[in-house]
Amino acid sequence: MNEVFANQTLAEDGYGKGKSMINKLVDKIKKTGAPIVVGLDPMLDYVPEQIKAAAFSEFGETPAGAAEAIWQYNKAIVDATYDLIPAVKPQIAMYEQFGVEGVKTFQKTVDYCHEKDLVVIGDVKRGDIGSTSAAYATGHLGKVQIGSKVYAGFDEDFATVNPYLGTDGIKPFVDVCKEQKKGIFILVKTSNPSSGEFQDRIINGKPLYEHVGEKVAEWGADCMGDAYSYVGAVVGATYPEQGKLLRKVMPKSFILVPGYGAQGGKGADLVHFFNEDGLGAIVNSSRGIIAAYKQDVYKEKGITPENFADASRLAVQDMIADIAGALASR
Amino acid sequence: MNEVFANQTLAEDGYGKGKSMINKLVDKIKKTGAPIVVGLDPMLDYVPEQIKAAAFSEFGETPAGAAEAIWQYNKAIVDATYDLIPAVKPQIAMYEQFGVEGVKTFQKTVDYCHEKDLVVIGDVKRGDIGSTSAAYATGHLGKVQIGSKVYAGFDEDFATVNPYLGTDGIKPFVDVCKEQKKGIFILVKTSNPSSGEFQDRIINGKPLYEHVGEKVAEWGADCMGDAYSYVGAVVGATYPEQGKLLRKVMPKSFILVPGYGAQGGKGADLVHFFNEDGLGAIVNSSRGIIAAYKQDVYKEKGITPENFADASRLAVQDMIADIAGALASR
Repeated sequence: MNEVFANQTLAEDGYGKGKSMINKLVDKIKKTGAPIVVGLDPMLDYVPEQIKAAAFSEFGETPAGAAEAIWQYNKAIVDATYDLIPAVKPQIAMYEQFGVEGVKTFQKTVDYCHEKDLVVIGDVKRGDIGSTSAAYATGHLGKVQIGSKVYAGFDEDFATVNPYLGTDGIKPFVDVCKEQKKGIFILVKTSNPSSGEFQDRIINGKPLYEHVGEKVAEWGADCMGDAYSYVGAVVGATYPEQGKLLRKVMPKSFILVPGYGAQGGKGADLVHFFNEDGLGAIVNSSRGIIAAYKQDVYKEKGITPENFADASRLAVQDMIADIAGALASR
Repeated sequence: MNEVFANQTLAEDGYGKGKSMINKLVDKIKKTGAPIVVGLDPMLDYVPEQIKAAAFSEFGETPAGAAEAIWQYNKAIVDATYDLIPAVKPQIAMYEQFGVEGVKTFQKTVDYCHEKDLVVIGDVKRGDIGSTSAAYATGHLGKVQIGSKVYAGFDEDFATVNPYLGTDGIKPFVDVCKEQKKGIFILVKTSNPSSGEFQDRIINGKPLYEHVGEKVAEWGADCMGDAYSYVGAVVGATYPEQGKLLRKVMPKSFILVPGYGAQGGKGADLVHFFNEDGLGAIVNSSRGIIAAYKQDVYKEKGITPENFADASRLAVQDMIADIAGALASR
């Protein structure tokens, strides 16, 4: 948490100040040719033994030790992939598991990814009534006044938000995004098997997720970057037909697409999440990249737990090729 | 975050071990005659100047200073009210505003309330896909394995959970609750003005909140304490008619009722949230209690910013009387 002056941003490139973060995301996708985001969702089980051993020998088998292991693991993966990708998506649940120490590593990870000029999507899925959503928005995207000074909070560039509470749960996030030139992705149709339980229920002839998608388009209409709104949506790769529909319902919204890889989504499933310009979607893979070293396909290429981060780099390259191939052949 | 042994709990009274936390909540409500919970949702604006001045003089106008001010404020309010009430509900958004330092104060507040034998409802409104919900459940209610050791996470007794992702977002919380004898409150009908935007939409002749309420009853059916399930619901005081309906839909679920006081709910609005036994609901007030010292009614009774915590005690007593009166005259 760093002190900032009223209109200062921590970024030095103008993004998040004059230039909206959604433009930075689009520019970086174009530059890398990679409409992908690496999900930094570390489970302690994923972390190679040598990293855990070093961390535990320094801090013991403690939350501080676990947090250190995860930090070293994240750092190695970021170092091995940052030049290939536009963005990362740390999932805060994986850090909250370890209490305050875990949250410190979340902050360290966000800050380090900013040093590497990555766009950081905080996967926090917050959402509450108005004044409380305002506090979450301040904490994750905004700035807080303390006496005569102003500090940035966790300072992600984007956050994921839950829509169940309606407009007055979303608006405080939108207000902070307008002020800070940041953005949100609102849950519309999630990637999990039971997402349909409520999201698919029919209201006036249309599923709930379509109503939510319409609201996303409405909330985002006056939140435009150059070509896309900074009010985006989350739609799971596991639901390609719904993605196709929602692409049309929210033409100006960027879609964050989880569920690729470990959850079952493939490049060919994803083509309809994109617009004709090849933009409009960013696909997340977490386990498939950060724990790639455990997959036989990479072991056969000489990967061991010692060079695990090289597997993450290979997995990123494979994912980029898979999606590019699918988009080229549509 | 404290180390614990596999089946050990931090509580020494058997609750959370053999005895379910829902039983502790019910027992404490009976003992205090107070079906209320104090919402520890501190905004820096609520904290009296002398507390802020002391904290800032020690730590500067920094996140650590803000966190210290909030901690001292919380502690004074807890000290002034803990013998009158069964439970507190810290709203984690208010702490996340101040980043890692704020989260430390959240943890300190949870721990201190446990020392005072209060039931702690973590108002965290988490919810994600299966494996991620499992991480949240571990972090807030469960225990995490680090090498050969086991640690409790933030260690609240209950957490609030968002249902938008369906059963596989909820089940990991239920699993941890079964194991730890803890509980959750699932958002059903929230207290905010726009809660109806999605929650009131009609599906097969019934509003979405009723479908969610039915699921809460189903999820909670095999999660019984002595008289009530430890899978509860959140229904706003601002919607008394919906509360009346949902009371019948979920007869065994405890209802956590926000929206009393500052949001407009009154005792008379609340009677139908309770069962005939006078139990089944617990009503939250946040600002109305923690910032009571700012109200004219308490200023007229000699309250100043210096004795702000006395106002909180008076406000708790007034709230207990308001609800008891409403229940007696129904």
